[in-house]
Order: sequence, then structure tokens, then C-alpha cells
Amino acid sequence: MKKIIIQIHCKDQSGIIASVTNFISDNNGNIVYIDQHVDREQDIFFMRVESEFTTFSMDGFTSNFRDVLVEKFQMKWRIYNAEDKPKMAIFVSKYDHCLYDILGRYRSGELHCELPFIISNHLDLKYIADNFNIPFYHIPVTKANKLEAEKEQLKLLKEHNIDFIVLARYMQIVSGKLIDLYKNKIINIHHSFLPAFVGAKPYHSALKRGVKIIGATSHYITEELDAGPIIEQDVARVSHTYSIKDLITKGRDLEKIVLATAIKHHINRKVMVYNNKTVIFY
Amino acid sequence: MKKIIIQIHCKDQSGIIASVTNFISDNNGNIVYIDQHVDREQDIFFMRVESEFTTFSMDGFTSNFRDVLVEKFQMKWRIYNAEDKPKMAIFVSKYDHCLYDILGRYRSGELHCELPFIISNHLDLKYIADNFNIPFYHIPVTKANKLEAEKEQLKLLKEHNIDFIVLARYMQIVSGKLIDLYKNKIINIHHSFLPAFVGAKPYHSALKRGVKIIGATSHYITEELDAGPIIEQDVARVSHTYSIKDLITKGRDLEKIVLATAIKHHINRKVMVYNNKTVIFY
Amino acid sequence: MKKIIIQIHCKDQSGIIASVTNFISDNNGNIVYIDQHVDREQDIFFMRVESEFTTFSMDGFTSNFRDVLVEKFQMKWRIYNAEDKPKMAIFVSKYDHCLYDILGRYRSGELHCELPFIISNHLDLKYIADNFNIPFYHIPVTKANKLEAEKEQLKLLKEHNIDFIVLARYMQIVSGKLIDLYKNKIINIHHSFLPAFVGAKPYHSALKRGVKIIGATSHYITEELDAGPIIEQDVARVSHTYSIKDLITKGRDLEKIVLATAIKHHINRKVMVYNNKTVIFY
Amino acid sequence: MKKIIIQIHCKDQSGIIASVTNFISDNNGNIVYIDQHVDREQDIFFMRVESEFTTFSMDGFTSNFRDVLVEKFQMKWRIYNAEDKPKMAIFVSKYDHCLYDILGRYRSGELHCELPFIISNHLDLKYIADNFNIPFYHIPVTKANKLEAEKEQLKLLKEHNIDFIVLARYMQIVSGKLIDLYKNKIINIHHSFLPAFVGAKPYHSALKRGVKIIGATSHYITEELDAGPIIEQDVARVSHTYSIKDLITKGRDLEKIVLATAIKHHINRKVMVYNNKTVIFY
Repeated sequence: MKKIIIQIHCKDQSGIIASVTNFISDNNGNIVYIDQHVDREQDIFFMRVESEFTTFSMDGFTSNFRDVLVEKFQMKWRIYNAEDKPKMAIFVSKYDHCLYDILGRYRSGELHCELPFIISNHLDLKYIADNFNIPFYHIPVTKANKLEAEKEQLKLLKEHNIDFIVLARYMQIVSGKLIDLYKNKIINIHHSFLPAFVGAKPYHSALKRGVKIIGATSHYITEELDAGPIIEQDVARVSHTYSIKDLITKGRDLEKIVLATAIKHHINRKVMVYNNKTVIFY
Repeated sequence: MKKIIIQIHCKDQSGIIASVTNFISDNNGNIVYIDQHVDREQDIFFMRVESEFTTFSMDGFTSNFRDVLVEKFQMKWRIYNAEDKPKMAIFVSKYDHCLYDILGRYRSGELHCELPFIISNHLDLKYIADNFNIPFYHIPVTKANKLEAEKEQLKLLKEHNIDFIVLARYMQIVSGKLIDLYKNKIINIHHSFLPAFVGAKPYHSALKRGVKIIGATSHYITEELDAGPIIEQDVARVSHTYSIKDLITKGRDLEKIVLATAIKHHINRKVMVYNNKTVIFY
Repeated sequence: MKKIIIQIHCKDQSGIIASVTNFISDNNGNIVYIDQHVDREQDIFFMRVESEFTTFSMDGFTSNFRDVLVEKFQMKWRIYNAEDKPKMAIFVSKYDHCLYDILGRYRSGELHCELPFIISNHLDLKYIADNFNIPFYHIPVTKANKLEAEKEQLKLLKEHNIDFIVLARYMQIVSGKLIDLYKNKIINIHHSFLPAFVGAKPYHSALKRGVKIIGATSHYITEELDAGPIIEQDVARVSHTYSIKDLITKGRDLEKIVLATAIKHHINRKVMVYNNKTVIFY
Repeated sequence: MKKIIIQIHCKDQSGIIASVTNFISDNNGNIVYIDQHVDREQDIFFMRVESEFTTFSMDGFTSNFRDVLVEKFQMKWRIYNAEDKPKMAIFVSKYDHCLYDILGRYRSGELHCELPFIISNHLDLKYIADNFNIPFYHIPVTKANKLEAEKEQLKLLKEHNIDFIVLARYMQIVSGKLIDLYKNKIINIHHSFLPAFVGAKPYHSALKRGVKIIGATSHYITEELDAGPIIEQDVARVSHTYSIKDLITKGRDLEKIVLATAIKHHINRKVMVYNNKTVIFY
């Protein structure tokens, strides 16, 4: 059995669902999952379909898909083999908790992806990568060497055909070139409940504001800091008894879970991005 | 525009989704919502569809539906006019918070239903019904008069064509006859996080067990006490500082929200029941 | 038995707790509740004590309190009779859900306060006040009459010895004079998770940002909009399926619970304000 | 500066708080933390105090403590040096996620304890212990060798002066002798929201019951299975879309956080046990 995942979005029109399901049926597919959403404000239709085939040719199917559907509905679309494992690269700095959590899940088989390498601007976490037998590349970043650093990163990303990047508390700003090449494919974890406390030291800002709840947010990186499409968020209650150290400790648990959840949604092709927001077909 | 809601479930088979979407298309409907779920354990397929038509005949459509789909897939099915407002009866005793919350939402238009009457085994809450201009029927229940009480209730339910019943902290056991007539149509609120603390005085049991979290559960009534299909649950954190009075006070907020949420899911035809569980297409 | 509640704050120093407990003991009081907190950043000590006395004179006790403790530790302090019910005034506009929720709790005895009147800039909610037999004063507010409106409000507040004010989705900006007179005594409910989405139409901003969680925040009013000390916050999960109407509906449940919780903390003298933040001794 | 932590409980009586604070003051201590709770049902008083001393003798202080307070109020009491690190032993079987999470926190300094060894009835997780340089003892358990296994465990626990034990998804029933020796010192993680789904396969039971929320509970082990005093609980929302595998995956995140939280409360001497419940002074 071959399974594929189809993501579609286009202007909302009459008859899309029937046309798509008809098409799959005509191509001998059996639909095992279908979900849709219409953004009535923007008048945009989104759909995610999983379909099984006894025999399947990606080239043949996509060719038919274009002929029959894409033109007709002016669709934006992606089709994936369900069994394909996207290649994930992780960027880290000195904080270990997110990296550590991801690697534990990766080793236990929870993440349906490949992990060709880890990049870091410091050496502190090399030992964790070694423990898990993941290649570790130390690419320091200074004001002076930003172009070379970027060049090295891009070289590795290209060599290994990396599909998406995870910034696991990576403390450097990612270059514009990287953002362009990996549009909606760089997942960041920001240690606040966006859009509150954008930028540096959000826990300190949270302490100052005296909030009773802190949060963590996972989002795709865009040119604007902490402003990209939100994939997942979660919160935890705090109180006046929390020192800055307590907020940071509690926040780490949130960051780990929120980042891992976002990574899984991405790996499983459940996320569609439109208008700086995400539609996530759980 | 006429909109209908279709709920289907049957043994999982190849081609159901395509057949249904085809059928609707052939009958000039435009699907505006579709969601499905396969219970792989039981091998059962569930689907909920919303479809719009410029012209529509319920008799014609359901007749075709039977001919083309029901037999073929051995479907269990229901079709509703989206604009129809189900008729809801509320049963109460002395606790006012759930009734009060429901009536506030009803008056503000949040509940797409009709509310022909309220039944109570006490007179305490009559003044609330009067405030909201809802007919109030006092039907006391004692060990001796259970049959007459049931008879009165059934008479009122039948007279007003009641579609479903809400037990808003109603403290009497509902008769088996009523349960049969209203299978999966009597919504109860139980003041615990089922299946913990079934039966009477769950807050006292929660206090005794020293739980750090309390909950409320809304479910359909079945013959077995507090064992019916769960529609909605929610929880709140508590601690050793909570006296029984504090647990009850905090629990009331949960009960109100959980019951209202379950009522809305039911009214909006989002709930399907199978194997003593609910599938809720949000 | 006479019970009093003492709130203290001062620069953190050695021996405060022992001195206070000693003092109460010397004055024949039995401490039934004590909690404290040191803000180590600011080096400020906070304490809340509940103490019982067989015989008690407020004048005598506070006089001794000043002599023995206040000077020595340079304390800021308040002492309340536990049985005294603070007088609460509610300001509303057209949204009824918060008012309705507060009145339900008030009538059931959940709020240990008095409710002399409700003020509104519209007449829409008069019928609710009438239902609950609470005096209702219609004070319209326009660009032209702000001074007279304020004058009328202050007159009523003064006449009735109002202790604190609740803005239950009151849509007018409260005057600076009122804020001065009722410093840390005007509780507002803002329909977002502060500091995100300050100002008007936060649900629309939340929808635009594509957050996966919405919130409500209760805070004391200060000169700066939505920037005052936060008393209570809570959140609820949402998704791309939520239209603006759905966000508003879900948000209403949050607003009710969060505002009621803040009101209860205030009534029960559990809140201490310092440095634009609250210390809440649950 | 020497800091000590005092835990007291006794029958509720007049003057305890003043007496204790006086005593500490007379012994030249400065109280930096005090919290108390009265269980009015049982009429029991609980108190937790942290006090600092420039010079301190544990023997001298506890001797005075006995003379002045214990007899007078019939106190049960414990006094700890805040800097002492309790010795924690971990028991595991094959599930790695909890062990892995604890070791990550241990290595980062988040757990103020020592970790002399890990015991397991299988060899599967030896490599993790090796990675973290923690001695690992393989003690298989069969129906036939229960007594020897227990003997080996007790020998290790005694040799290393273990203060408390963590069962991190350890799948064997702990012997009665161990429970007696370590009363309220064996922390277990049960993968359900107790008291729901006691015993084996709680996720399967949760799936069957169709709950909309799953949970994890950390508690002290007692003779009765899953019935000991609850330390911490947390929940997560699920839906009909969750297969048994999904429930287990989601539950793992809860188990990790709940167990770690309970361990920290225990290490920080914040937990007091009475009447099969815990009082936790956060």
C-alpha cells in the first residue's frame, strides 16, 4: 500500500471537495483522511487529504493532478509520499534542554524524520550530539564573520538536502538568505506567549509585568523578529513567588513540549501557512 | 440557500468519501464542511458533512440518499436542516448555577434551540424561570409517586415535541423509560472528572483522596449511573488549602462551562455516539 | 470571636515575622493564617495575617500596632475587620455576560460584599439590575459631557461610601480623577492575555496574529491603558477553525471567570499591590 | 549563613505560630519563609519554616526545640539543613522517557540531590546510565526470586544511605518491606489521573471509556496499589482522533513533567503527608 498526503489551497469555490475526491477515486486511490477549512474572511479554501493506492506513480499522479484540478481551481498544492522522512537540521547554542528533548524523541522513533547533523555556534553541546552519534558542526558566529558562517551553514544544508531547520534555543539571528531559501521551513521556539514579550529576555519582561501565566511559542521564522506564523503555543501558571530563576526553570518544560509538538506537526505535513498564520489539520 | 447537516457511520470500506461527495454533487449540493474519522479498533467510519443547496427537498434528497448510499455501504445516518432549532427541556432541582448560565446564553442567542419549558422537583428555582419567561412545571418526586411523576414528565415531553433533555444538576435518577425514549438525548452534568468519583458527593470523595485537580463531566445518560458516553470534560487545579466549600465553589464554574459546551455540541449536531463513546466533529 | 486581617509591607529586615507574631500574641490574638513573601529583587517584605480575638478594640489595637511595629520597621499597613463587607459598585455598558455572572454569584452569597448600585452609560442592561433589585443609574457619556458624567459618578460613589469599583466590560475610559480616588480599587476585565493585544478589538488582533490560545486579564486600572497591576489571567485553546464570532463567544466564558476570581481576591483582602504587580496570598 | 527547614504538624492549638517564631528568634534565627495550613476537618495544624542563622548547631537547636516546643504542643517535626542533598535512587524497567528526563535535569543542576545509582530489572536502559556516568545495577525480578531481589535492593539502598526512591515507570510491585522502610519516601508515577484507571493499562481503559482528558499522577507508594498520597497531577486534552499509540505518546510528556515536579517538591522539603494526602507548601 502506498500512501500519499495532499495539501491544497485556493480561492473558495463551489465543487472543490467533490472534484478532488472524484479525481482520487478516478485514479484508483482510497481516501483515508480528509479535512478542510474555509477562511471566510479571506475566502480561501484549505484541504488536506491522505489517500492509499495499491499501485502508484508520483509522476503520473501529479501530472494528472495538474491537468484535471490545478488549472481549474487555480490551486496551490503539495503532494508527499507518506513514508518519506524529511531531513531535519538542528541549530543550537548553549541551552541544552530542547536539543536533549528532541534527541530523546528522535532516538525512540517518535519523530518520523532523518537528522543528518547539528550545527552550533558553541562547542558546549557537542558532547550531547556525540552521545547520540549525530554529526556536530561548530560554526562560530561573530560580527565580523557573518557571511562566512552563513556560507558554511548553506553548504551543509545543501550537501545534505535538508528539508527543514529547527532552531532549538539557537541564539543567533538567522540570515535573510537562509530565511528565503527555507520559507516556512525554519521552526523557532520563543520563550514567551507571543505576541507578548517579543525579543530578548522575555522572562525578565514577564517578571516585570507581573503576569500570572507564562508561555512558549513555536513559529516559522520570517524577516521580522518573533513575528512569523505561529504553529503551537502553551502556557503554565506562575505567581508572585516565582523568581526569575523559577520562571526560567518552569519555562524550559514548556519550551520542550511546544517545540516538539510543532516539529511533529511539520514532519507529519499537518501545517499549512497562509497570511502569516497556520492552519493545522490535527 | 438551504443548508443541511449529514451524519453517517458504517463499517469502514473503500470509496465511501468519494461516493458521498459525488452523491451530493450529483444532487446539486455544494459541500461547505466535511470531516471524518475511522475508529481503526472497531473498523467503523464516521463522517459529518454540511452542504448547501439553492433548491432543496428533504424528501427527495433522503429518498435518493437511501437508494444510492445507505444500502450500498450499510450506513446508519441522519440528515438535519441546519436552520431547524431542536427543542430542549431542562430538568433542575435546587442548584441554580447551571440553569442560570444556560438561560443567560439562551437569552443572548448563543444557543440555537428552543426552550419550551423547565421541569423541577422543587419550587426553589421557579423565580428564575419566571424572570426569563420560560414555563415552569413543578413535578415533585417521592419514593411513592415515581410512576406518576414519570407519566407527567413524558406527557409534557411529548406535548412539546422535545428533542433532547438537559439535566442541569437535577438530583433525581431519571426513569428507564425516559432513557429509552431519549437514547443519547439526555445530557447530564456530573461534578467530577469521570470515571473518578462516580455517584453522590464527588467533591467529598475528591477531598478525601487528596487530588490536586478536580473536574466536571458532561455525558449522555444511560442505565448505568455516570457511565454514559462522555461529551465534554474540563478540570481546575486545587490544593490542600481548599475546604469542601471551596471545592464546591470552584467546581460550579467548571460545571457551568462544561455543560454549556456539551449542549452546544449537541445542538450543532457535532456529536456522534458509538460504543459508549462520542466522536465530536468540532 | 472577632477576626481581623492584617496586610503589611516594608523593606525586608531581620526579625519582622517574629515581631509581628509576638505583637499579636501580646495583644491576646490567636493567628489562624499567616503567609509572607520577599521580593528579593526589590528587597521588599510582604505579609498577610488573620488573627482571632475573644475581645477586640480596633482603635486600641491599631494604636498599639503603630507604636510597636510601624515605626520600627517603617511599615505600610492595613487592618480590616474580617466580617466587614466592602461596598462594590459595578459599571457596565451593553455587554451583559460579566454583569450577569457577578449578580448570580452575589445573589447566591458567593461574594462577601455589598452592592449598592450599578452605573451604566446605556439603558440596555437596566432590566437585569431590576431583576436583581439593584439600583441602576443611567449616566450617558459623550465627548461633550465628560465632566458632568464624572461629577455624577463621583457623587454616587461618595454618597454610598463605595470601597471599590468593578468595570464589567464598561466601554468608557475612566477619568483620571476617579483613578486617583480609587487607586488599586478599580478592577477591570480586558479581553486579552495582557500584555498581548492592548486596547480596542483584541479578539480581532488575536485572529490576525493567528494565536492558538486566547486569554482574559483582570487588573487594577491605572492612568496607562491596560497597563495596571494584573490580578488574574486565564486562557483557552483556539484554532484556525475559530471565526471572530467564535473567539468572542469563547472569550466571554474566560472574561466571566477571570473577573469573578479577581473580585473575590479583592473582597477577601488577598491582594497586595507593589511596583505595578500584585502579590496574592491565596 | 546557615539555613534550616522546619516541618511541623500537631493538633491545632492557640498560640503555635507565635511560639515557634518566638523560639526561632530567641535562638538567633531569622525567619525567611513561613507558611501554614489548618485542616479544619481533622483539626490539624501544619507549618513549614525556613530560617537563617549566622552560627548554628543542629544538636543544640534540636535539643532546645524539643524542650520548648515539642512537648508543649505534642508536635511531630523534622528539621533539615537546607544545603544537605538527599540521596535519590531510581528504579526503572524498559520505558526510558522518565529516566531520561530526570537525568537531564540532574545533570543541569536542577535537582538539588545526589544520585548514587539506578536499579533496573532489565538491561535495556543501562546505556543511558552509562552515558550519564551513574552506577547501574541490574536486578532481575521473577516469581521465584522475589526475596533475593528485595535483599539485593535493600543492601544497595542501605550501603548508599538512600533517602528516597523514585520509581520511574518501574513495572514491578515494590515489596512491603521496602514500603515500610521508606514510608512516604517512594515516589511513583502512574500514567492516569488517579483515582481513575488504577492498575495496569490505564491508557487502554481511558480509550475504552472515551475520556476527553488524560492525566498522570505522582504519589507516594503505599501497600494498596495506586492509592497512596498524591503529590502532583496534570492533564492534557485528547479526542476521538487519538489512537492508543497517540494517548501513550501524549501521556509520556505528562508523566515526565509530573514526576519531575513531584521529585522537586520532595527534594525541597515542601511536602508533608497526613491522612493519605499531601500538604505542599509551594
